[in-house]
Amino acid sequence: MFERRLQAVRKHLETTGLDALLVSHLPHVRYLTGFSGSNGLCLVTLSKQYFFTDNRYREQSKSEIDGFEITVTSETLSQAARKRGVLNGRKRVGFESQYVSVSMFENLKKLFPAVMFVSKRMVIEDIAALKEEIEIEAIKQAAAITDKVFKKVLLALKPGIKELDLAAEISYWHQRFGADGDAFESIVASGPRGALPHGRATEKKICRGEFVTLDFGCTFHGYNSDLTRTVAVGKPGARATKIYQTVLQAQCKAIEATRPGVSARALDRVARNHIRQKGFGKYFSHSLGHGLGIEIHEPLRLSAKSKDVVAVGNVFTIEPGIYIKGIGGVRIEDDVVVRDSGCEVITKSPKELIIV
Amino acid sequence: MFERRLQAVRKHLETTGLDALLVSHLPHVRYLTGFSGSNGLCLVTLSKQYFFTDNRYREQSKSEIDGFEITVTSETLSQAARKRGVLNGRKRVGFESQYVSVSMFENLKKLFPAVMFVSKRMVIEDIAALKEEIEIEAIKQAAAITDKVFKKVLLALKPGIKELDLAAEISYWHQRFGADGDAFESIVASGPRGALPHGRATEKKICRGEFVTLDFGCTFHGYNSDLTRTVAVGKPGARATKIYQTVLQAQCKAIEATRPGVSARALDRVARNHIRQKGFGKYFSHSLGHGLGIEIHEPLRLSAKSKDVVAVGNVFTIEPGIYIKGIGGVRIEDDVVVRDSGCEVITKSPKELIIV
Repeated sequence: MFERRLQAVRKHLETTGLDALLVSHLPHVRYLTGFSGSNGLCLVTLSKQYFFTDNRYREQSKSEIDGFEITVTSETLSQAARKRGVLNGRKRVGFESQYVSVSMFENLKKLFPAVMFVSKRMVIEDIAALKEEIEIEAIKQAAAITDKVFKKVLLALKPGIKELDLAAEISYWHQRFGADGDAFESIVASGPRGALPHGRATEKKICRGEFVTLDFGCTFHGYNSDLTRTVAVGKPGARATKIYQTVLQAQCKAIEATRPGVSARALDRVARNHIRQKGFGKYFSHSLGHGLGIEIHEPLRLSAKSKDVVAVGNVFTIEPGIYIKGIGGVRIEDDVVVRDSGCEVITKSPKELIIV
Repeated sequence: MFERRLQAVRKHLETTGLDALLVSHLPHVRYLTGFSGSNGLCLVTLSKQYFFTDNRYREQSKSEIDGFEITVTSETLSQAARKRGVLNGRKRVGFESQYVSVSMFENLKKLFPAVMFVSKRMVIEDIAALKEEIEIEAIKQAAAITDKVFKKVLLALKPGIKELDLAAEISYWHQRFGADGDAFESIVASGPRGALPHGRATEKKICRGEFVTLDFGCTFHGYNSDLTRTVAVGKPGARATKIYQTVLQAQCKAIEATRPGVSARALDRVARNHIRQKGFGKYFSHSLGHGLGIEIHEPLRLSAKSKDVVAVGNVFTIEPGIYIKGIGGVRIEDDVVVRDSGCEVITKSPKELIIV
């Protein structure tokens, strides 16, 4: 049982005067219970915790979940919760308003007319932002798989191969190396397409003289990795090399500056200032990074406007880039975990310019 | 521009007394506009149609969308809609209550205090249930890719290979053959695991003497395919062969019975009766099939309780199965489109028992 997580939920209930929290967003259900199926609902009260799922998951819920009272139903999960009487006498119940549809909410109000449902945001998100060692270990395993996949991609990366075929290699090797699958649709953007920060892989063939930006990651035991490397196909020119080195230096500086207590905004500034000093300021068009864990994008933001402050146990990406329309782009991204003394880089793929 | 689709939305507005429909579910946004990005909102009034997206999709929205007034914003899409004044003077606006979160709904109410938002379900779903030829063509292309992938899987399927490695082959070849990716997490269930209708691929190695059920599909241009075949590894015994033939006969009978005007319940009954007559009635534990198209599961249901009636242009799966706990299972699934004279089978992979 995830004692710390449940205790943190209960602390939130107490400080906000709630009788219970209804958790319906599947990554959050998994975070609290360990359940990895596709239909589950959990309810945490001040003294107990309940889990609801359907017939398909009778065995799986028993083997994955510990310490929850489990109800298996052939009705909807909200109906099962009513039958079980878990909200009887509860007055104020929090729910995840970003993840509950209006439809489901209308149903809840009908099923539990005596309950006052209170819109909640960022309860589980805030708890999950501080990773436990067991979670960091899972992210490391996801990152290790992605690092191995990068080596396979380098073997396949030759002039003439299509971007889409490289994306296929990524999916294939992620799964072969034991991941649940890609964490997101891989970005493979070559030549001028590298100027698109989110350039999906296309039918375009990769040519000699181009940079190729590869942004990919996998999910392993519910945790995600996220890695970007830009590789040169043939020896690049002087300006391209300067752009690459500028991004790399900016990324290393931001990593060096990462430690508990620093503001996320300051980290973004470290990378952005370096890129500006080298004359490419207007070409770094997105924020420096984002939280990572049970979701590929968690709320922590490394941007010029962020109000987040970095704390021990935060895991996030550091991914500056330079994108020049019509020419191309470079991005370098690692995942880091914040430690007492600074930060530990989780992704291990080499960052010196690789020429294939 | 998708004239028929917009006309159908407007007909719904007129008959239900709405001034506009707000469409936020991305597959529905794509259905109405053609936009394939990850952030878009559209609004259809009685006389005009509007589309909102963010900066990332400035070029893409222009190239994909025709006939909509496009607004590109760096704010939220609802804020952009307010600034553009598109709901000024609109009193009753429908929204997709299954797909709008309580959070977004609260925002909408704040941004548009004079509007009465009306909870709507099944508006786009009902229109999209009747496929146009251009849509059927896309589903056929998705199915043709999946059929080609099945041939590749047969080449890889040997005693000793892991279920997960077959799933990796499926992802790889779907992408190599031009699909956007898998339509869902592939099911590869061998031996006793075949008794699980939704058996995810695992580390289990495939052994001689087992059946392997493979259920997989891809997405191509926003449309999905869904195919199941059960393959024997080595010559199966008499009972296993009888089970296979029973499922195959049930599946063929349901396909033969498919024509406009027949009830979905009757189709389910045709397959279920056959399986019952052969003595396996209690082992066919799910419904016969589901609608298919812009979603891998569309609302049309072929089940004992369904109230749907089959119509020309419906596309759905026909997938009976027999699952015996501890022993194994067989499922055979094709995708069909309903035509004036009966139905056309879209998936073309062979159904006679294949022994590898």
